[in-house]
Amino acid sequence: MLPSDISSLSAAGQTLQVGLGERSYPILIGRDLPSDWIARIHGRQVLLVSNPQIAGYHLAHYQQLLEQAGKTVAVCLFADGEQYKTLEELGKAFDVLMANRFNRDCTLVALGGGVVGDMTGFAAASFQRGVDFVQVPTTLLAQVDSSVGGKTGVNHPLGKNMIGAFKQPVAVICDLATLDTLPPREFAAGLAEIIKYALIRDLPFLSWLEDNMPRLLARDDQALSEAIYRSCQHKADIVARDEFESGERALLNLGHTFGHAIETAQGYGNYLHGEAVAIGMLMAADLSARQGWLSATDVSRVRQVLQQAGLPVEVPAMTVATFRELMAHDKKVKAGQLRLVLLQALGQAIITSDYDPVLLDQTLAYRMPGQTSATPVSGN
Amino acid sequence: MLPSDISSLSAAGQTLQVGLGERSYPILIGRDLPSDWIARIHGRQVLLVSNPQIAGYHLAHYQQLLEQAGKTVAVCLFADGEQYKTLEELGKAFDVLMANRFNRDCTLVALGGGVVGDMTGFAAASFQRGVDFVQVPTTLLAQVDSSVGGKTGVNHPLGKNMIGAFKQPVAVICDLATLDTLPPREFAAGLAEIIKYALIRDLPFLSWLEDNMPRLLARDDQALSEAIYRSCQHKADIVARDEFESGERALLNLGHTFGHAIETAQGYGNYLHGEAVAIGMLMAADLSARQGWLSATDVSRVRQVLQQAGLPVEVPAMTVATFRELMAHDKKVKAGQLRLVLLQALGQAIITSDYDPVLLDQTLAYRMPGQTSATPVSGN
Repeated sequence: MLPSDISSLSAAGQTLQVGLGERSYPILIGRDLPSDWIARIHGRQVLLVSNPQIAGYHLAHYQQLLEQAGKTVAVCLFADGEQYKTLEELGKAFDVLMANRFNRDCTLVALGGGVVGDMTGFAAASFQRGVDFVQVPTTLLAQVDSSVGGKTGVNHPLGKNMIGAFKQPVAVICDLATLDTLPPREFAAGLAEIIKYALIRDLPFLSWLEDNMPRLLARDDQALSEAIYRSCQHKADIVARDEFESGERALLNLGHTFGHAIETAQGYGNYLHGEAVAIGMLMAADLSARQGWLSATDVSRVRQVLQQAGLPVEVPAMTVATFRELMAHDKKVKAGQLRLVLLQALGQAIITSDYDPVLLDQTLAYRMPGQTSATPVSGN
Repeated sequence: MLPSDISSLSAAGQTLQVGLGERSYPILIGRDLPSDWIARIHGRQVLLVSNPQIAGYHLAHYQQLLEQAGKTVAVCLFADGEQYKTLEELGKAFDVLMANRFNRDCTLVALGGGVVGDMTGFAAASFQRGVDFVQVPTTLLAQVDSSVGGKTGVNHPLGKNMIGAFKQPVAVICDLATLDTLPPREFAAGLAEIIKYALIRDLPFLSWLEDNMPRLLARDDQALSEAIYRSCQHKADIVARDEFESGERALLNLGHTFGHAIETAQGYGNYLHGEAVAIGMLMAADLSARQGWLSATDVSRVRQVLQQAGLPVEVPAMTVATFRELMAHDKKVKAGQLRLVLLQALGQAIITSDYDPVLLDQTLAYRMPGQTSATPVSGN
């Protein structure tokens, strides 16, 4: 149930519409966004969901905005970290909702990064079989990736994101002010996903990123707005065409099959997700070059833009066997065949199982000249 | 994703189609139903979900059918009883699914009553953001009510069915053999919901029930098939027109607002749900008569058909204040106004807040002549 008055909002910043029929919603991007979107939230009861650290920075501001708009606000804080993205921790949200007698007309607001957003979305999908929710992503990664697209859920001890729902928010608020407190490493991890959109479907955007990386790293509002807008546009476009991930949406996994293997082998937390994806994208480019699709110059461009963003580009010391074993668990495996997202050209990704396995092994074994250390690059 | 080969199945018994566009599915009703529906389940991995008691009666049969059809079967047993319909207990299903490396192409089969069906459906809605599930309801109540319609979920300590999803099964298998082991009280509770369909929208069915109650109580296959078919037809028709319960579907709550108050006041387990609904339906008929919509003869017919089915018809000793307090929590309360499902005529229910509150109090206070006991009738 999308209140049409929210979806028709325009903001002082940039506004982008995610077109999903009656589940369409706006993404607002900017600093000091007008707060009238809050007054238009369906219902009076609002649950503000965050974690203790983010809450320390931003909760008071959002709680005040909501209360000034006449909302009754309850707060639920999840413990911080991927290891608390569990069904058990999720129960906290239902406890607060029930204790405060929230009804079906309530709205949940996720104020945080990917973990808070994913958990809040799943809570909203499940409370009374579905209530509204708003995403206020507070990391660059969440703003350009996880807050858009409707994938929500929690982890199981034996697998990430195994329990969840497809649930679209009624609005996404990308408030640039929330990025002011983001540590540099997390900021760079967000840039990895932005670069990903350029590599899979937007060559002009790649050039723009090469030219504007210094402005982005200086967190220039104008440059950030543009990069976030363009990224969300790509994500929204792909999601609108493949909401339930039956095809094209898999292109968004460029670098992820390699990246997940790296994250798993190196232990979660040693590499940020965006860092592992950065290395994975370079590996995908490397294999694409071995297939004859990219030139050496193309691969250098990929490496350089990642380095410009402050991202790691060296494959950690892992055997080919370890890579192969971990990649076999990828959900893109169909009938025992591992499909990979590769680049037919810069700005043109495909998903294919039609690659030479010998070349894949060469990519898995390849290390940069001079690289000897087994230490994760990002551990520096 | 509904495999069309399942939905187009015809069975030796009766088959009814629930029309929900691409989420349409068949309900098969009969004894010794052909097992070819199993071979057509999407994917190879099947999780059979039940509880220890039902499993003792029926698990081996269904496991054998599935394995003969080449399926890999894992089993998950939930603890028996409404008090275990929790998020925590639900976690068992995910543990078994993950431990057995089930993928997105798996199917969950719910073998049990309403609790097993509701929990299995929610597990299927949430595992990897949605996999298929089949309902094999083993109580009359589940066959004519909870297995059809897509409401799934678990309880919260502060409220029933507060956490869940709308999730349609890919097929419902009403196997009359599973009713052979059903205790008489639970059988009668199922009849209450069957009578409900007659009262809300099918006067000829009421006459049929009055004529055929002895055959139903003797568990005559032919009579049972007809009653289940007709009931599912009504439920399917209403659900198809109002899948997400925004309007007409509320008519299915005839007797439930009074009934829930009785269940809560008397403690869960003292009255079966169907028993409390039976009393509630009679109270709805009583108020409808006071409003001038039904005759005294109409109300007698309602009482008699419930008594024929072996259901309680006496309101337990509860004050008007208790009733009013408990009814105020009903989810049909809108803007502080309690809406009730009442009868404009036998076979013609409406949902309305346009009743005389004085007459409601008279209904709440009314006891059958000679009734003095505070003991729940069903406690005999």
